[in-house]
Amino acid sequence: MANFGSDNASGVHPKIIEAMALSASGMAPAYGVDELTKSVEQRLASLFETDVTALLVGTGTAANCIGLATFCSPFGGIFAHAESHIANDESTAPELYTGGARQFTVGGDDAKPNLEELVQKIDVSGARGVHSVEPAVIAISNLTELGARFSPDEIAAYSELAKSLGMKLFIDGARFANAVAGESDSPADLTWRAGVDALSFGATKNGAMAAEAIVFFNKSAAVNAERIRKRGGHLWSKHRFLAAQFDAFLDDDLWLANARHANQMGQSLKSQLQAIPGIEFASVSEANELFVRMPKPQAEALWECGHAFYEWPSLEGTYRLVTSFTTEQAEVDAFCADLRALATDG
Amino acid sequence: MANFGSDNASGVHPKIIEAMALSASGMAPAYGVDELTKSVEQRLASLFETDVTALLVGTGTAANCIGLATFCSPFGGIFAHAESHIANDESTAPELYTGGARQFTVGGDDAKPNLEELVQKIDVSGARGVHSVEPAVIAISNLTELGARFSPDEIAAYSELAKSLGMKLFIDGARFANAVAGESDSPADLTWRAGVDALSFGATKNGAMAAEAIVFFNKSAAVNAERIRKRGGHLWSKHRFLAAQFDAFLDDDLWLANARHANQMGQSLKSQLQAIPGIEFASVSEANELFVRMPKPQAEALWECGHAFYEWPSLEGTYRLVTSFTTEQAEVDAFCADLRALATDG
Amino acid sequence: MANFGSDNASGVHPKIIEAMALSASGMAPAYGVDELTKSVEQRLASLFETDVTALLVGTGTAANCIGLATFCSPFGGIFAHAESHIANDESTAPELYTGGARQFTVGGDDAKPNLEELVQKIDVSGARGVHSVEPAVIAISNLTELGARFSPDEIAAYSELAKSLGMKLFIDGARFANAVAGESDSPADLTWRAGVDALSFGATKNGAMAAEAIVFFNKSAAVNAERIRKRGGHLWSKHRFLAAQFDAFLDDDLWLANARHANQMGQSLKSQLQAIPGIEFASVSEANELFVRMPKPQAEALWECGHAFYEWPSLEGTYRLVTSFTTEQAEVDAFCADLRALATDG
Amino acid sequence: MANFGSDNASGVHPKIIEAMALSASGMAPAYGVDELTKSVEQRLASLFETDVTALLVGTGTAANCIGLATFCSPFGGIFAHAESHIANDESTAPELYTGGARQFTVGGDDAKPNLEELVQKIDVSGARGVHSVEPAVIAISNLTELGARFSPDEIAAYSELAKSLGMKLFIDGARFANAVAGESDSPADLTWRAGVDALSFGATKNGAMAAEAIVFFNKSAAVNAERIRKRGGHLWSKHRFLAAQFDAFLDDDLWLANARHANQMGQSLKSQLQAIPGIEFASVSEANELFVRMPKPQAEALWECGHAFYEWPSLEGTYRLVTSFTTEQAEVDAFCADLRALATDG
Repeated sequence: MANFGSDNASGVHPKIIEAMALSASGMAPAYGVDELTKSVEQRLASLFETDVTALLVGTGTAANCIGLATFCSPFGGIFAHAESHIANDESTAPELYTGGARQFTVGGDDAKPNLEELVQKIDVSGARGVHSVEPAVIAISNLTELGARFSPDEIAAYSELAKSLGMKLFIDGARFANAVAGESDSPADLTWRAGVDALSFGATKNGAMAAEAIVFFNKSAAVNAERIRKRGGHLWSKHRFLAAQFDAFLDDDLWLANARHANQMGQSLKSQLQAIPGIEFASVSEANELFVRMPKPQAEALWECGHAFYEWPSLEGTYRLVTSFTTEQAEVDAFCADLRALATDG
Repeated sequence: MANFGSDNASGVHPKIIEAMALSASGMAPAYGVDELTKSVEQRLASLFETDVTALLVGTGTAANCIGLATFCSPFGGIFAHAESHIANDESTAPELYTGGARQFTVGGDDAKPNLEELVQKIDVSGARGVHSVEPAVIAISNLTELGARFSPDEIAAYSELAKSLGMKLFIDGARFANAVAGESDSPADLTWRAGVDALSFGATKNGAMAAEAIVFFNKSAAVNAERIRKRGGHLWSKHRFLAAQFDAFLDDDLWLANARHANQMGQSLKSQLQAIPGIEFASVSEANELFVRMPKPQAEALWECGHAFYEWPSLEGTYRLVTSFTTEQAEVDAFCADLRALATDG
Repeated sequence: MANFGSDNASGVHPKIIEAMALSASGMAPAYGVDELTKSVEQRLASLFETDVTALLVGTGTAANCIGLATFCSPFGGIFAHAESHIANDESTAPELYTGGARQFTVGGDDAKPNLEELVQKIDVSGARGVHSVEPAVIAISNLTELGARFSPDEIAAYSELAKSLGMKLFIDGARFANAVAGESDSPADLTWRAGVDALSFGATKNGAMAAEAIVFFNKSAAVNAERIRKRGGHLWSKHRFLAAQFDAFLDDDLWLANARHANQMGQSLKSQLQAIPGIEFASVSEANELFVRMPKPQAEALWECGHAFYEWPSLEGTYRLVTSFTTEQAEVDAFCADLRALATDG
Repeated sequence: MANFGSDNASGVHPKIIEAMALSASGMAPAYGVDELTKSVEQRLASLFETDVTALLVGTGTAANCIGLATFCSPFGGIFAHAESHIANDESTAPELYTGGARQFTVGGDDAKPNLEELVQKIDVSGARGVHSVEPAVIAISNLTELGARFSPDEIAAYSELAKSLGMKLFIDGARFANAVAGESDSPADLTWRAGVDALSFGATKNGAMAAEAIVFFNKSAAVNAERIRKRGGHLWSKHRFLAAQFDAFLDDDLWLANARHANQMGQSLKSQLQAIPGIEFASVSEANELFVRMPKPQAEALWECGHAFYEWPSLEGTYRLVTSFTTEQAEVDAFCADLRALATDG
């Protein structure tokens, strides 16, 4: 039986929990001034090949919203894809953290904001001066919410637009590792070299317990980030345990290995599914998240077999299958075998 | 060399990190609907001998502010001691979470809000109808910020006042364990039996990594708490790791054993200090936090010896010494020996 | 030369400024406890044939946002038409007053929210529990932002939907007078009898200087409204001057006479325009707001003639023409004559 | 019978209501881009002998809170006297507009913040870095809430402190006219020449209907003010009626004449009261607000005579008597005669 419900359902990688256990004894200064935290900050700078302001927090919603609030005033506008996590899955956390900024959403294939529509939406949204909002942030997700990757050129197109309008470009990177793994573009290529101002770099879905880094490449615009984190209640007292997670996550490129595995499982699943009649893909699904159209009875039959996965609320008749660093080939094969059998019966 | 800087500087108890490691493998539903979370909720109900709504979060600021915001409207007033954590150490997190409620502070020995002053402050604060605030919450800390314990009768006096005015009584219990340990009053006696509406029950300072429970005894007033937690970004996806910490924390009364040890170290320290000429106590200091007046040169000499502790910003010439579940008798003895030597030299 | 820019550009009706002048001498209790205010509250109850909670404020944005915030929590959702004033013209005031609720917009002809799309949007928006929002308010405008009227039956359809989902129905009535004038449906028919919970009843655009009433038919849900008004800074000290405006506005049905005149001018303009080749209507335009499609060169030529009106940002090639209580037939005729001449030349 | 309840209870000066009536006919662009508004902005610049950014609003709470929010981040601290209007009479409007900044209060004679206490409070408030607040604004009132005037030198002492700490100095000038009238210091002397960053310049209490100007001398720090005003719902559509009030208010120094009259009445009242045995002053009371200690039975007897005035909630046994531009000498005399009679009886 396969569990493709979410990479959030996976546990913690042994090396990460081990690193946490190693930090468990002894005293360390609280609130992020410990040595391990400083070291992780340096490792993040090395990884991204540039000086950064990096803040660690425990959840993805916190990482996204602290990042957005650092760039966006209460009368600002944030522009994202209609399928994005900040638009659908974070309650009104973006409004809380920004003090009431407004989110605008656009369409676009594979949950990549359509550039033309984005230009038009920004234009209209800010057109009435003080009566409207001040366009402040373009937010994309990489991986996108529909499992697609951005190329550096695609990202640069957004950042050029943002810069031309005095806006910032933010990336929700809850699955940034899956976007990097197995490709030739470096973390730097996919961020600041393409004009990105900040990235929420997720570890939780990819082997950590509760750890996300908000990585600001635009350091001068990040001066308020620490205070925003604190007043959100996201400054851990025993901060070294956020750092320990990231330390192990970065060690020997564990983050890439984990993501590579998840992607491979995802793509193995995809290639098997493509061979099954009646199965279609609702998005490009190029990493560890697959968006699959199938008849509801087939989905129900799979659930009855004990496989776990969710219907995707905004795309009719579409189901999301997510693989993770713990997914086994046997799960993939079992799932596909059951589906093949169902397809044949049907 | 002793580290009395903060119980936040301590690590994680072996049994707690072990429990987390045990949860690290395997899949579990995300966002708090897993079995371990349910079990912890039941254990908290058992511990408090009543039905409760319990939410787990990673930081004390989050626990306090989500609890306060559940009870207080944006035009409400929160009344606390001037030395309290919510008044001094959580930036403007209470304002963020409540949408802009106001905090009023009063004095009182040992950081226990003076009842008469409290009555008067509440009265004046709400006296001008819509022009002023709507008194909403009395917030006390147990242990208090100056290391004192409340008796059930003292708590009941606040809750009677709160009830008579349509207000709620909230306890910041970051060190609730230290208030319970070694005394005859049960957790129930110190909370709902004394009229408390909600408690933030801290584990982080007492052996956990990052885990606090917001325990609502007034369940009908707690309906919004979950949404407030989510929009604060405090709903962990891998929620079982909050639960695992609490599970081990409650197992075999580890929480009490840890707190008892911290208290014993604190009281050992206290009795040795009392015997040193020139050392005075600025508060009753009856658990694991001692507030000690000494000449600055002596404090500086102790720092030079390598001992760690902080000056307390709001009490002139006063230093805070905190013991924890990891403090060793040798630290206590070494610190006192050094101080005795300094006192003799002086 | 005609000024069809906005009914906001008109002045104050002589009877209203006269009433204000009459109130100018003598003393009166401040902050809305004066006799004139009480009398206006009673007159509003009479006008709507039911007991109401009525609050007066100086701007339409305040009236809308205080009304919405009274019904919507910070984690709530507000559903309105994409063309609505609250969605486009009030900056992030709705977010400010609600403490960060989210607005969702739907389409629909003539700026009437399409019911089917509304149902679907509400459904999806709240579908993910605490991860999404709590649907709270359906907000319609009558007149709509595109100059259309709602019938009581149409309104009832929204209120039934709202009630079935535990939501409230709010009407932005900046031009409510224009919706009532010359029709057989009473103010009661168009509000509480059709299930409306609250109405912002505008006077400013229709002859007053700065006066809007927030009329709550759902009184039990309105308990916080006064405090929300105060903390928004919208409780006038010399409140009798809000009351004086409304008093004169309601006297001898001045409000209806003004609106009737504006509507007649609008419909006179409409019938003449309909006879001009090449002019099309982008909405039903059944009162004092006309939405007209014409070639840009014609619009520019009209501007050069000295006529004032605006391009409508969200509808391509569409211009808004608004008549008011001060519009004269000669303006209408002059405008149409110029346009006819242009159409002939073209 | 005298009405010393509040200068808010007075009406509108004939010249001001006349100016409003003159503006009532004809069309004008909405939202503050009309000619009269521009002219008032220039007149304010002339009055203050410097370039300013001036925004008009309808209430004092709005003026204060928009001004404060322009200077203070959500994690900032505002420091004011414990008797100040922003601390006691504006509900949680300061918190709403700043997005949750915190107010700190200090004591001091005559409601002038004690400098030493201010320094100490700012120091402690910001001492714990991100755990505490970022001191942002010192706010004083001139007149103070207890009817005292500041000299330019006194103001400069606050501004020097503010500047030395990177903070701003804000003046609540609801009764600024009363502070200027009859003294030799100019508006410029009492504001920017003494280092003031912004002033809310009140007209409502001094003859206008509903009009306050937020005058920013620190223009570069005022860039967000317009958007903050709009999202508070305080941008009037028929803005010329705010401008008309100010225009008449400034014409021929009506503002000074009104304030001078109010002050003279106040000082006449004061000198008569000083001669009555048993009457004491709780503050310096040097303009149009007197704070008088008298036995409660005497106050009650005066109320029974039909005189109107309020007990001051925060000063025991103290009553506030306020004169305004409409107070007549006969009221003053009648009040004092009654009190003298009571004093003799007693």
